[in-house]
Amino acid sequence: MSAESNPRSGSPLRPVPADSIQNWDEQADVVVAGYGIAGVCAAIEAARAGARVLILERTSGWGGAAAQAGGFIYLGGGTPLQRALGFEDTPENMEAFLRAALGPGVDEAKIGDYCRGSVEHYEWLVANGVPFREAFWGEPGWEPPHDEGLMYSGGENAAPFNEIATPAPRGHVPQMENKRTGQKGGGYMLMQPLANTAEALGVTVAYDTRIQRLVVDADGRVVGVVAKRYGEEITVRAERGVVLATGSFAYNDPMIESYAPRLIGRPGAAIEEHDGIGIRLAQGLGAELAHMDATEVAFFGDPQMLARGILVNGQGQRFVPEDTYPGRIGQMSLLRQENTVYLVIDEASYEASQQTETATPFFRVPPTWAAETVAELESDMGLPARSLQSTVEVYNHHAGDGVDPLFGKKSEWVAPISGPVAGFDMRGFTAGFTLGGLRTDLDSRVLHVSGEPIPGLFAAGRCTSGICAGGYVSGASLGDGSFYGRRAGIAAAKN
Amino acid sequence: MSAESNPRSGSPLRPVPADSIQNWDEQADVVVAGYGIAGVCAAIEAARAGARVLILERTSGWGGAAAQAGGFIYLGGGTPLQRALGFEDTPENMEAFLRAALGPGVDEAKIGDYCRGSVEHYEWLVANGVPFREAFWGEPGWEPPHDEGLMYSGGENAAPFNEIATPAPRGHVPQMENKRTGQKGGGYMLMQPLANTAEALGVTVAYDTRIQRLVVDADGRVVGVVAKRYGEEITVRAERGVVLATGSFAYNDPMIESYAPRLIGRPGAAIEEHDGIGIRLAQGLGAELAHMDATEVAFFGDPQMLARGILVNGQGQRFVPEDTYPGRIGQMSLLRQENTVYLVIDEASYEASQQTETATPFFRVPPTWAAETVAELESDMGLPARSLQSTVEVYNHHAGDGVDPLFGKKSEWVAPISGPVAGFDMRGFTAGFTLGGLRTDLDSRVLHVSGEPIPGLFAAGRCTSGICAGGYVSGASLGDGSFYGRRAGIAAAKN
Repeated sequence: MSAESNPRSGSPLRPVPADSIQNWDEQADVVVAGYGIAGVCAAIEAARAGARVLILERTSGWGGAAAQAGGFIYLGGGTPLQRALGFEDTPENMEAFLRAALGPGVDEAKIGDYCRGSVEHYEWLVANGVPFREAFWGEPGWEPPHDEGLMYSGGENAAPFNEIATPAPRGHVPQMENKRTGQKGGGYMLMQPLANTAEALGVTVAYDTRIQRLVVDADGRVVGVVAKRYGEEITVRAERGVVLATGSFAYNDPMIESYAPRLIGRPGAAIEEHDGIGIRLAQGLGAELAHMDATEVAFFGDPQMLARGILVNGQGQRFVPEDTYPGRIGQMSLLRQENTVYLVIDEASYEASQQTETATPFFRVPPTWAAETVAELESDMGLPARSLQSTVEVYNHHAGDGVDPLFGKKSEWVAPISGPVAGFDMRGFTAGFTLGGLRTDLDSRVLHVSGEPIPGLFAAGRCTSGICAGGYVSGASLGDGSFYGRRAGIAAAKN
Repeated sequence: MSAESNPRSGSPLRPVPADSIQNWDEQADVVVAGYGIAGVCAAIEAARAGARVLILERTSGWGGAAAQAGGFIYLGGGTPLQRALGFEDTPENMEAFLRAALGPGVDEAKIGDYCRGSVEHYEWLVANGVPFREAFWGEPGWEPPHDEGLMYSGGENAAPFNEIATPAPRGHVPQMENKRTGQKGGGYMLMQPLANTAEALGVTVAYDTRIQRLVVDADGRVVGVVAKRYGEEITVRAERGVVLATGSFAYNDPMIESYAPRLIGRPGAAIEEHDGIGIRLAQGLGAELAHMDATEVAFFGDPQMLARGILVNGQGQRFVPEDTYPGRIGQMSLLRQENTVYLVIDEASYEASQQTETATPFFRVPPTWAAETVAELESDMGLPARSLQSTVEVYNHHAGDGVDPLFGKKSEWVAPISGPVAGFDMRGFTAGFTLGGLRTDLDSRVLHVSGEPIPGLFAAGRCTSGICAGGYVSGASLGDGSFYGRRAGIAAAKN
């Protein structure tokens, strides 16, 4: 191959001129970089549209971050699973929620499109072998404890969103096997049937092959890639298009510093392969970005305990309805409370939380402080005098009536704090992955800063900015990754 | 000229190939786009280094946002003005403060460089005719009320920064004329002598000339620009380099939506020419960005009243030391409190604030609510029962001792709230401009995403990411714009 002879070969992230390549080592109609959720969906649709598809995957197996994830796919608008379990939902209702929960600055066209296509997308997943069990898990938490197929996964039924749109659970979870041992989690059960489908359709895969550069012809059209396999550069011709599906930039330290510095030192729920390469390569062609600061933030507290207690910041103040989606708690903690958060819970509520079967027993830790009174706890925790006490007094003032007018925690979780109390030090209990990336249109075409598509270049998954701007819901990444992965495959195949 | 004949001429923001241009309409050694603070400093230094300099300015006069600004330049490390007024400072002390106040994710090399060069930069400004009067204004506020030359402008003497670095005022303000009528404000008095200097050095200016595209040769080097003047495209050859000094993207709505959505609908302290064109053009060449979400946020409250009262959010909770830099109050309000902020102040403190000569009398508005007791005010304001009362109780509990252990407001501003009280509705009292932009090195070379400089392309001012990541201090923009504008001129001239 001849990319070595190109004078710019030594400049990483710059496009390689197509006319510098004499012989292509590989070729296909559609070349997909990355074999996670976006890549597999692109490959399936491109193959069904008649294209010869080659996936380049840098590791030695399929799955990406998806196969290690909990497997939530955010779907709604009245999916068969929602209806079977008695939940009403419409695309409009789903859209109203997502615009509130994921904004400000959301891609409104994309959210509307995603909501309108959500039922069809569910059916497509099922048709391609993804199993969903007709069972609902109604407790707050990160994941269902068993193999239930549906759960609230974004605070839909918590304040303030439960007054903005009719609550409906939209976290669709592929049926897990051996949940307790973690052998085949939801993400695995999502990826496995899709990978099987892709390969049954004749999609070929080059493993241990890492995309390095894009090849561009004289008209500015992307016509291939240069990749590295076993230390050797290879050239791969893409007759119809290249699909970038290489994941987030959570593990690219300079990018985190430039774009999402709150995540410095705390990548989470991503994989080390998420080095931002797809974003960088497209930036080298003048691609537009969006919401590069946006971050999912996990909060490693047991939601059963959180909902029953109160969360306070370094001033002893509450800041969030404790019964909401824990990812929202994480964002509020990391982005607004300097990552300084404590849980305060009385003995009775603590005991109640321990007796509930929850999804996250591994989040259970012993209390950092235990005291007979709130005043004593406040002092032990080193909070300013009267700060925690006044917070508890206000909380209790309303809790007797079963209400929380400050943050709107639901009555079922509200009870006056009394008797012995415990404090849990949850400072730094956060980690996350990045949500920003390439701006794409509804056909998953990568947009240039001019607003025009870059010819021959498509992208989906967490190397793109999907439906999220600042907020997050569990299932948004596997959701928009799979949805716009399909679009990328369709558009590339007919390019 | 021949750019029209280029087949890509219709694609905005894409580079024009140099070989498509037969005749250049204008030429110079260094072409500077934008005649604000960064542009004028680049022009001066390039001209002093022997280059023929042409400034392209889209309006019909010099000044940019700088001439309309308050004029603060953030300088320190022991400037002659600081020393003359009895303040000790060192580059290291300044650096410690800026790293804390402008982070996380700051460009540490740039901050260190800026602090070490700060005294020399002050002397350069003075040598070029910028006047600073040896007088200090010590009150909290946005600007000095008269023509004082030095003021705290970033919360250096407020919590938490007053425990991180030794407080020193670093807001250097050019001596104003006719301050009260606004005829010649600090920004004007900064720009006027610098523009005079540039023109005395032979710098030429093409007014009403708007940069449209960059011209790039076959090696990827920027060798000129295409601009529009009176509706006609002209080509401008730059023998040694192009300096982008076109300001922020505060008035580019799609960019605000993509990158800094908290500012949607609230641009402030910027000018409408700030459309992000310099950023876009460089992005089209694969330029790296940084901190595109970062925003300065002004808060339109009278700092004298703020410092004497308490600021509370929609839950009646305090969230900031009220005696800090008002820009920090603005950031905390917009980015963390949903732009929902109220001032609560008792009659005695309100009266005291009115009797002080402040810089911002136009911020004085009548109270929204007035009540005999805090309980009554709480109810009138529609805050949850007991929420504001408990906040005041905690505040008063410590105010009797003259301390504020929650947020560290200084003793001089702390007094128990008693007697009749007023509430001011300050919801939405914010507006701002963007701080993110092109990533440049210490020589103001625009960096490609690969980390390499883009040959022939330099940038400074608010189209670049300067010393700020998320935080802000007044004077940072005129400060890094002038400092790195000079660097751009020097580097371009010897390119």
